[in-house]
Amino acid sequence: MVDAFETRETHRCHGGTLGFHAHRSAATGTEMRVGVYLPPQAEQGRVPALYYLAGLTCTEETFLIKAGAIRHAAALGLALIAPDTSPRGAGIPGEGDDWDFGLGAGFYLDATEEPWARHYRMYSYVTDELPALIETSFPVVSGQRGLFGHSMGGHGALTIALKQPERWRSVSALAPIANPVAVPWGEKAFSRYLGADRETWASYDASLLMRQRAYPGKILVDQGLEDKFLEPQLHPEALEAAAVASGQQLLLRRHAGYDHSYWFIQSVIEDHLRWHATGSL
Amino acid sequence: MVDAFETRETHRCHGGTLGFHAHRSAATGTEMRVGVYLPPQAEQGRVPALYYLAGLTCTEETFLIKAGAIRHAAALGLALIAPDTSPRGAGIPGEGDDWDFGLGAGFYLDATEEPWARHYRMYSYVTDELPALIETSFPVVSGQRGLFGHSMGGHGALTIALKQPERWRSVSALAPIANPVAVPWGEKAFSRYLGADRETWASYDASLLMRQRAYPGKILVDQGLEDKFLEPQLHPEALEAAAVASGQQLLLRRHAGYDHSYWFIQSVIEDHLRWHATGSL
Repeated sequence: MVDAFETRETHRCHGGTLGFHAHRSAATGTEMRVGVYLPPQAEQGRVPALYYLAGLTCTEETFLIKAGAIRHAAALGLALIAPDTSPRGAGIPGEGDDWDFGLGAGFYLDATEEPWARHYRMYSYVTDELPALIETSFPVVSGQRGLFGHSMGGHGALTIALKQPERWRSVSALAPIANPVAVPWGEKAFSRYLGADRETWASYDASLLMRQRAYPGKILVDQGLEDKFLEPQLHPEALEAAAVASGQQLLLRRHAGYDHSYWFIQSVIEDHLRWHATGSL
Repeated sequence: MVDAFETRETHRCHGGTLGFHAHRSAATGTEMRVGVYLPPQAEQGRVPALYYLAGLTCTEETFLIKAGAIRHAAALGLALIAPDTSPRGAGIPGEGDDWDFGLGAGFYLDATEEPWARHYRMYSYVTDELPALIETSFPVVSGQRGLFGHSMGGHGALTIALKQPERWRSVSALAPIANPVAVPWGEKAFSRYLGADRETWASYDASLLMRQRAYPGKILVDQGLEDKFLEPQLHPEALEAAAVASGQQLLLRRHAGYDHSYWFIQSVIEDHLRWHATGSL
């Protein structure tokens, strides 16, 4: 660890080291928190890093506690990087009032509207600031970044990789908000973070982005069919249609019986880590 | 599910079904809550059940969320039964004041002192009432019960199996409170639940019980060496000495670098499930 991060706690886990760290973020103007798992292989040299973007209400801890990913990261030699889902401590009036907007709901975009524009800049944070800090402070390989996420974080992973594919070697998503401009979660967040002009929303919509330009690699998406958010909020069929339109290679798997929870995520997590580590299932 | 349990939620997980249930307990005179994972094999017939007793402050959810056990239970065909760590809702004045006594800290004994004697009867609950209800309501094999636990729950697993070995086919423990009569956690709980007479405490102390009579099978115990509770509260060396005295077969493994947390538990959980499923590592 170099100076950028203040380490709050560390734990030995599956032969590697899990740490929870905090740092001052230039992008958000607040403290940001991030969980980092370094597999045993990182004690011998630099390892590839896989970034996970979590969903609404989650923190930097949620994925690492609930997804069962660490044992696979240890076996495959992947570092796991799990940032928080929004700035905290900005002190914006009302930012804690809603579970699907504000705190815990940064939507991985750079807000342009007041009072959010100064602090709610998770796109810049995740794409620029965080990888630079991680690659300076931890034994991870530069430029071999994988990216995935769940729900709001699946939206984040897909849009970030589609907008700047050169920065992300692999991408996958779990129950992503695949077409946010067309669903209540996206409409609420985008109208407040980005303003009333829906033209500006398109640059943060995975289905609209994918329709314009394919990501240069196959994308894995898993979706449970008993997910109560599937019909009102997620719309994987929009992503599927966009993939057909642009020629995107997409492996969209639908899973009977599974819901939106981390019980679903842990059931398919090994496939995602293998996908990022090896390029196939 | 038959009438005994009210199912609060269910989730598909690793091809099986995880449920959180509640029921009225005759043993505790309160509602009790329990998590039950049924592996895919339980859809074809009855499967062996492995009971997990959690530590201080935990609930019926903690182990199932944090231990990474479900994937192994699914692979091995084990049901997981995870009860809460105390009665809740008894309404005893002061029962929520301490994190290491009262709520979340039932210590898997039958209290004899007032005001605890009516409700704090986790020994009877775990040994008699719960297995009977589980075996009536879920597709698990009668009499093929495994038992393990962590910290306070490791104490519970060891003492319960040593006192009634005919009821438990296999036993293991993670960082157990191995000699509670000699440490602050045990002294505090036993003096209040059982009274000042230390003679009565001996029947709930794993090291004292093991010294009298060995459990008819090898016991697996894992302990992290960076566990901050090791020296003040856990004392695995007392268990080791008791095993020598009675001829108990004991595999006590000490793990450099690991602490008391579920990050440690998840690192060794596969071995424990394999131990209970197959009788060896």
